[in-house]
Amino acid sequence: MTGAGDEHADAAADIAAVEQANTAYYEAVERGDLDALTAAWLPDEELTVSCVHPGWPVLSGRREVLRSYALIMANTEYIQFFLTDVGVSMTADTALVTCTENILSGGPAEEGASLGPLVGQLVVATNVFRRTPDGWKLWSHHGSPVLAETGEEEDEDPTS
Amino acid sequence: MTGAGDEHADAAADIAAVEQANTAYYEAVERGDLDALTAAWLPDEELTVSCVHPGWPVLSGRREVLRSYALIMANTEYIQFFLTDVGVSMTADTALVTCTENILSGGPAEEGASLGPLVGQLVVATNVFRRTPDGWKLWSHHGSPVLAETGEEEDEDPTS
Repeated sequence: MTGAGDEHADAAADIAAVEQANTAYYEAVERGDLDALTAAWLPDEELTVSCVHPGWPVLSGRREVLRSYALIMANTEYIQFFLTDVGVSMTADTALVTCTENILSGGPAEEGASLGPLVGQLVVATNVFRRTPDGWKLWSHHGSPVLAETGEEEDEDPTS
Repeated sequence: MTGAGDEHADAAADIAAVEQANTAYYEAVERGDLDALTAAWLPDEELTVSCVHPGWPVLSGRREVLRSYALIMANTEYIQFFLTDVGVSMTADTALVTCTENILSGGPAEEGASLGPLVGQLVVATNVFRRTPDGWKLWSHHGSPVLAETGEEEDEDPTS
């Protein structure tokens, strides 16, 4: 038996663990560390994983998902994520993280330059994690570009 | 005790129920039926729901999410979803649906016209459902525009 205090402490620890798994995922991309990124995703025997990069179609299954990150890493000289608005909604075994990815990235250097041009990008993500014996692992990542400031004004056209 | 045959039948029935909940969500939007749409989402006391419309920032909580649909419905005279590539990945209580929304929509009529211009849109969605006593309910919807055909060719720039 656990008391209400223990339950609150457990819930806080769970949320912290999920936030840490979320941060570790982005740090793996920042470092171009495909091994760490591979470890961040659920094994395929558990559940079929899926991934949507901003502007991309859906990628399904570990093989296709990890291949996409290898491609992105090969074409990215520099990428940094400044995460804001991180929100966690969770049950015992599944956690849903929403966050804003303020991205600064640069492609490979062009001839004679030391680094490609840096580009800022505003992306929002929904990341779904599952609890496993090895910690929280990604089941789904869906990132999408924020194309306009909507949802705040009353007089906008929300279908545009 | 249930046999392996029963388990497979149960799994197939669960997947069918999830697909039906997913279809019911889109049909509610098509009909502009805010009551049916409200019923498609998890009650807030359960978990915090979240929603990303294509190009939008994250909306969190039932109030903000349902308000966005009311706005979209008010600005949409006609909308139809042709769902393709529907994939379901699920545990006992959580289901993750990915699909392509081939959207045909039209805004309110301009003066003198009977219907606004129809627009085709290619959107991919990740929809997360939770099992409840009242059936499968939406925990999260994330839709995003497909901006380019990527992920198939080897020589593309996947960060663009």
